[in-house]
Parts: sequence; C-alpha cells; structure tokens
Amino acid sequence: MKWNLPSRDPAYREAALGRQAILTKPTGALGALEQVAVWLADVQQTETPVANPVSVIVFASDHPVSKLGVSAYPREVTPMMVINLAMGGAAASVLSRLYGASLHVVDVGAEPYPDPEPAVGVHWSRVKVGGTVGNLRDTDAMDTEALERALQAGADAVDALPEGTKVLILGEMGIGNTTPASALGARLLHCSADEMVGPGTGVAGEALAAKCDLVAMALSRTEGSTEPLEVLRRLGGREIAAIVGAMGRAAERGLAIIVDGFIVSSAALVAVEMDAGLRDYLWFGHRSAEPGHARILAALDASPLVDAGLRLGEGSGALTALPLFQAAVALHNEMATFEQASVPNRES
Amino acid sequence: MKWNLPSRDPAYREAALGRQAILTKPTGALGALEQVAVWLADVQQTETPVANPVSVIVFASDHPVSKLGVSAYPREVTPMMVINLAMGGAAASVLSRLYGASLHVVDVGAEPYPDPEPAVGVHWSRVKVGGTVGNLRDTDAMDTEALERALQAGADAVDALPEGTKVLILGEMGIGNTTPASALGARLLHCSADEMVGPGTGVAGEALAAKCDLVAMALSRTEGSTEPLEVLRRLGGREIAAIVGAMGRAAERGLAIIVDGFIVSSAALVAVEMDAGLRDYLWFGHRSAEPGHARILAALDASPLVDAGLRLGEGSGALTALPLFQAAVALHNEMATFEQASVPNRES
Repeated sequence: MKWNLPSRDPAYREAALGRQAILTKPTGALGALEQVAVWLADVQQTETPVANPVSVIVFASDHPVSKLGVSAYPREVTPMMVINLAMGGAAASVLSRLYGASLHVVDVGAEPYPDPEPAVGVHWSRVKVGGTVGNLRDTDAMDTEALERALQAGADAVDALPEGTKVLILGEMGIGNTTPASALGARLLHCSADEMVGPGTGVAGEALAAKCDLVAMALSRTEGSTEPLEVLRRLGGREIAAIVGAMGRAAERGLAIIVDGFIVSSAALVAVEMDAGLRDYLWFGHRSAEPGHARILAALDASPLVDAGLRLGEGSGALTALPLFQAAVALHNEMATFEQASVPNRES
Repeated sequence: MKWNLPSRDPAYREAALGRQAILTKPTGALGALEQVAVWLADVQQTETPVANPVSVIVFASDHPVSKLGVSAYPREVTPMMVINLAMGGAAASVLSRLYGASLHVVDVGAEPYPDPEPAVGVHWSRVKVGGTVGNLRDTDAMDTEALERALQAGADAVDALPEGTKVLILGEMGIGNTTPASALGARLLHCSADEMVGPGTGVAGEALAAKCDLVAMALSRTEGSTEPLEVLRRLGGREIAAIVGAMGRAAERGLAIIVDGFIVSSAALVAVEMDAGLRDYLWFGHRSAEPGHARILAALDASPLVDAGLRLGEGSGALTALPLFQAAVALHNEMATFEQASVPNRES
C-alpha cells in the first residue's frame, strides 16, 4: 500500500536554503532549527513556512496484552486517562492549551466509560472499530477488520481536523502499549526482544523479564511475517494502526507531522516501510527515555530536537518540542539579512 | 569572592517533589521537566513556580584577539550586530519577541558605532568600562580596572531589569570570543588548548590551528594562575566578565538563570568556581555544537534540555530552550492529580 502523496516543487526548499545562508548568523549556526525551517518550507510549499495552527490527535485503546502483567499500571487507567485527557488534566491537555493547539481525543478501543464533557479546546470522540483483538502472545493483535477500521479511523480523524491545520502531532494512550510497539520495532528492525523491550511506564525486575519473554513469544509466533501492514496487524494495536492511518492521510494533505516518542515512532516505522515517501513529512520531536527508541530513531535516520528524558506518551514529547518548530519559522521569516543589517559577511 | 546568596527553605523543594509524585503520569515520566519545575519552586521559594516574566541581557564587547585571525568574521561585525540586536533583526531579538521576553543589549566594550534606535521591547545601553584590554597572547585580557568595572556593569544590568523578572537569560556578542572562552575553560578544567578549542563561528584548517596555537600560548603565558577571578582577568573578556557579574547579582536576587552555550557556560564555570552556591541558580538550556561545551557541561554536572546543534550565541540557545521551562511549570501547576482524575495509581 502506498499513499497518494502530493508532488512537491523543489524550488521552495532551495529558496529556503538560500535564505538561511544570508540571515545574520554564521552559516549553520542555528543547527537543526535551520533544517526545520527548510523542511517546513518544502512540505508546505511556501517561502514563508509556519508552525501554526497545530492540531493534536491522541488515539486511545485498550490492549488485551495488558492483562498479562506487562505494565506498572492497571488496564483501567486507559479509560480514566481518556477522560482526563478530554477534561484537561493530562499532560497533553495542559501542553495543548499552553500552545493553543486543538486537542482531539479519539477512542478507538478503550474499555467502556461514561462520555466525558470535554474542556474548552478539546474534542472527544469514540469510534467502534469492531473486529477481533488479541494479546500478541497467543493471538494476533487485530484481525483484518479491526486493522482496516483502525487505519480508517486514523485517516478520518485527520479529515475532521479544523480547516487550516498546518502541523499535526499524534499521540496515544493505551496501558500496555510499549509491548506491541516493542514487538513491532523488533520485528521490523530484525532485532531480538531484549534489544527492544524497556521499562515502559516503569516495570522492572521480574515484570520486565516477563514483558521481554512475552515479546519474544510474539516474535516467535509471527516468524516469517515481514510485510509491514501484516506485521502491524499481528503485533500492533488499534491506536497504533490509527496513528499509521493518520500519518498517511496527513501526508496526503501536505501536513507537517511532529513525531512523539517510542509508540508513535513504532507507527512511523510501519508507515515508512509501507511508503518511503512518507518520511519527508515527519520530524522527530524528542528522544524518549525508553531505550528501544534509539534503535527506531537510528533506523529512520532521525535526530530529535529535545532530549529531556520524557517517556510519557500522549504526544507530550512532540508537544514539548513544538515551540522549537515555532522558533525555527520565526527566525527564518523574521531575522534580518546581512544586507538589511549592513553586517559584513564571512571573510572570503 | 562570594556572593550574598539568599537562604532557601527546603520545604518548597520537597513540596514540589511531592506534587510531581501525584500528578497523572508515571513517576519520572516527564523527565527533566519534572526536575525543572522542582528547581524553579526551590529557587523561587514557592508552591507555584513560574517561568515568566523573562528578561534577556546580551553583553557585547570587542576583543583585541579578533585582530589575530581567530574568527571567520571580521571584527567590525560586533558593533553592527549590536545594532542588529537592538533593532530587532538578530536571532535573539526574534526569539525574545516571540516569547515576550524583554531584551537588554548592553555594550561593555564594542568599537564605536552610532547609537541605535531600539525596536519595541528592546533596551540598548553603553557602559564605558575603561581600563586596558589585551589580546591574551601577549597581554592580559583585562587589567584590574576593566575587570572590576565589567563585573559591576553586569550586576548593574541585573539591577536595572524590569520589576518582577523571574527568569534571566544571559547572552553575548563579540567576534572572537570563543577564543577567550576556550582559554578560560582549558585553564579552569586543566586541559590542553586542543581539548577545548573548536571552530566557533566556523574557522577550519590553518585558521583553526592558529586559534589553537594562540590559546596554547595564552595558557602558557598565564601558567600558575588558578584563582578564578584572576583567570577571568587574564584570559576572559569584558562581556564574559559582565556575565559573571550578572550571574552573581541575579542569584543574589533569587532569579532563575537559563544558561546559553559555550561562552556563557565558560562564564558559569568562573562564577561557580568563585562560589559553588551559585550552581543552584543555573539550568543549562542547550548543548552547543562547539565541541568544548561538552567538557564544561560535564564539569558543571549539567544536562541541557535541547540538543539541536546550535552555535550562534546571543543567548539564542537558552531562548530556544525557554519554552521547555514554561512547559515544565504549566505541567506542574495544571496537571490533574491521580485523586482529582480518579485514575488508579501504580499497582503496588
């Protein structure tokens, strides 16, 4: 499967590179912020890139694997955190409010809970994905119906975003979901369970060993599966599939996507293996404390901007990095050129 | 010399740590953002830390060493960039405007230029520091008069900040000043010139070797000087001394200081060697691309939040990191607790 990605005129990228070279700073001295501005100019096909308006979609789902002792938190946390996200009390809610981003909480498979009354600026919805889901160890994460409907829910959530959205942050909530993310990463990067599994929300000792064993069993059970969508179906989860679907649709619409941490990066790995052209629409916001993240980042040739030891999910890492994208475009658009400021350039 | 640092009640730090433990997230999952919130609560002696209002002071000075071919840019850039900073076209001007920080450009020794008309929100002033300055290689960077008046200019600039400033960012402009910063760092950390000298604004090849040789000569000339203020006098520069003076005065006033990159970190090294208690008032914003920065950061036990390859100076790296401090306090003050959100905490 490939997405219908827009064609881009390379002139915008070249113009942005040219502008960076004449702003009043040593060439390259703004580091990745220069590259971010050039990237946004290319994705947005403009000479004046922007990092606003921003929309955040947090996809939430239960995982049957959460019954197998892989998380430090009980599975009931998932629906309660969906409510917390919607009502404005979760980290992603606070950061979305701080940055004026519209927050969309999309439940694609959490256990039942009463409909929340969302806070101002937050949108909540529930999609009944249907199909059958499994615990990875004994059964596939999703049947074909669940996979396809979760992918579609992701695409639909992007289509429902406010008009004019330019930057998209994707997040997730699902107790247990570092387990499927680890399985996906290990399968697609051909490494072992213990090279990818980490503490997630904070498992250690025997629980961590059990989580690692479970991923090893899931990898063994799915030996031979290599096609990324099939790997996603067998080892992923509904919110991860929704993120894959959202990434594809967002790229089709020319949105710039700031990638969050370990879980969202595992979805990015699937999406880029499905269609390498998608990589151009992604910038990685932060380096998670989850150890497997480094392997996925390396595989995707990604150098995140923020390295602050975050490992919360919900899109909180990408949200933390968001102001750096806003700084990058302000600098690109507003700094004086050497000529404007009558500043002598390098001695040549 | 010690500063008259305020005494702090440890109760605020403990209360902040206690609050972080009950917010709706896995313990520690916000990484350094949790530590930043606790730090601000401690420095500000409050239960509700803030990261606003922010003031930025950029100290600017010429360096006689810039006549010796140590920079990729001609020394005339210093006064022109002072004007650019004041008139709103430099990176620090753009970022200060973006974040609503008041920007104070303080000339403590640039070559003459016509008084600029500052942009809205920018303040410009010139302090005639006097005394004698030198090129490090043949003569001391400053005589006692220049050192003392530059330190005082830094303290005075802090005293002149807008009422209510809570967070201070210090920056610098001075063509050639990675050379004195390298010399300071190498002398105080007992390493060789080639372990500390890097490309600065972009010197390479023979010019880089010449810069390294010059720092080696300066280190050799000042062999035996170990007292930090004397090292600053012999190997620093007026804007670096002003930063040292500003750091001390800001800490005395209980301000939280976000440290910029290589040059400002070299000033921090001097300031902390003068008075170890000052370290508590510093958080390091970003990891510079200048290779010597890593050594200074390690010596000061600092883990910057942003790693984006910046090497521009002016305070631009600290400004880039500023929103992470604002995110940290918003999360600390606004996230729901487990009890408020009825979310089950860890299985114990």
